[in-house]
Amino acid sequence: PIRTAQQQEAFSAPLPEVLSRRVTVFEQEHFQGKCMEFTSECCNIHDCGFDNIRSIRVESGAWVGYEHHHFEGQQFVLERGEYPNWESYTGNLSYHTEWFKSFRPIYCSHHSSRMMIYERENFMGRCTELCDDYPSLQAMGWFRPEVGSMHVQCGAFVCYEYPGYRGQQYIMECEKHSGDYQHWRNWGSHCQTPKIQSIRRIRH
Amino acid sequence: PIRTAQQQEAFSAPLPEVLSRRVTVFEQEHFQGKCMEFTSECCNIHDCGFDNIRSIRVESGAWVGYEHHHFEGQQFVLERGEYPNWESYTGNLSYHTEWFKSFRPIYCSHHSSRMMIYERENFMGRCTELCDDYPSLQAMGWFRPEVGSMHVQCGAFVCYEYPGYRGQQYIMECEKHSGDYQHWRNWGSHCQTPKIQSIRRIRH
Repeated sequence: PIRTAQQQEAFSAPLPEVLSRRVTVFEQEHFQGKCMEFTSECCNIHDCGFDNIRSIRVESGAWVGYEHHHFEGQQFVLERGEYPNWESYTGNLSYHTEWFKSFRPIYCSHHSSRMMIYERENFMGRCTELCDDYPSLQAMGWFRPEVGSMHVQCGAFVCYEYPGYRGQQYIMECEKHSGDYQHWRNWGSHCQTPKIQSIRRIRH
Repeated sequence: PIRTAQQQEAFSAPLPEVLSRRVTVFEQEHFQGKCMEFTSECCNIHDCGFDNIRSIRVESGAWVGYEHHHFEGQQFVLERGEYPNWESYTGNLSYHTEWFKSFRPIYCSHHSSRMMIYERENFMGRCTELCDDYPSLQAMGWFRPEVGSMHVQCGAFVCYEYPGYRGQQYIMECEKHSGDYQHWRNWGSHCQTPKIQSIRRIRH
């Protein structure tokens, strides 16, 4: 049978992402207490009867957790595996609030990820293309510990304040804001500096 | 001119690593106070006149910092970039001691890194080969959140307790212990469980 270009494209497309997203959240540490399974976003855990979330088991997909309701505040990338306590999913001492109030799947339907980083805000100054994982941007040739602006061309990345994937996290997706992050104030409601020293792709 | 195989090998070898290793350590946060530059290991910072190290600038190479003298206690991988305070180089809440007492370069003269991970101690049970970065071992097919033993065939890796390069860190080098880590008690003097959920190569 002869396939048209459109049929071939549909045939080779991955399964819809919604089929492969599942997370179980627990009110107590170490997967104890009240629990609930989710396959899509939750913009306020109080509406689901939870006071707080203290442990998480990601069964599939990549997710982002937020400090506050409605996807505000500090961000935490959550990939498949077990997070028995607050320390394990934040990996971060900058905030001492142990709150986890909303979460959603990360949009990364592309199989590859590609982004541009720029020296200055509004996509100006020196720039370079990223399509791999970079535990130290400076070791790969970027000339300073800051980034001025970013454009995600496809896929999704997580950017970190310090080398080695440490410190504040910022999730950057092609499918949000058209992939445009023209100033550090757009990177997240908790972002206070343009400091970025490591960046990696989000894959799942 | 005709080169022998041996000459060609010497010709294409990278520059000796010692030429490209440099770290500056500071007694105070934010690169303040007494400072000193190192190009090789320091087994006790007190012998160099420091009470503690609170900020670090890695100029080149990859390094590992230790909680205690003589390369004991919690490990912190340090790649090129700026670490202005304790939070930035630990990325870890498991220990609340703010000590940084010795450090050394990481041995990763190979340009590629390859290791085997095994289900059980002493290289037994199911196994798989790793030669990339894995923010979630379970997402890439490993069947549980623990590893029983490991053998580093070439290069160096850092293994983490939790997904997304968080939690306790264990530096694994081909050039230490012949690359053999047959039980979690060999992973580091601070290691208390076989929990490993993410692994990445150390490159510089």
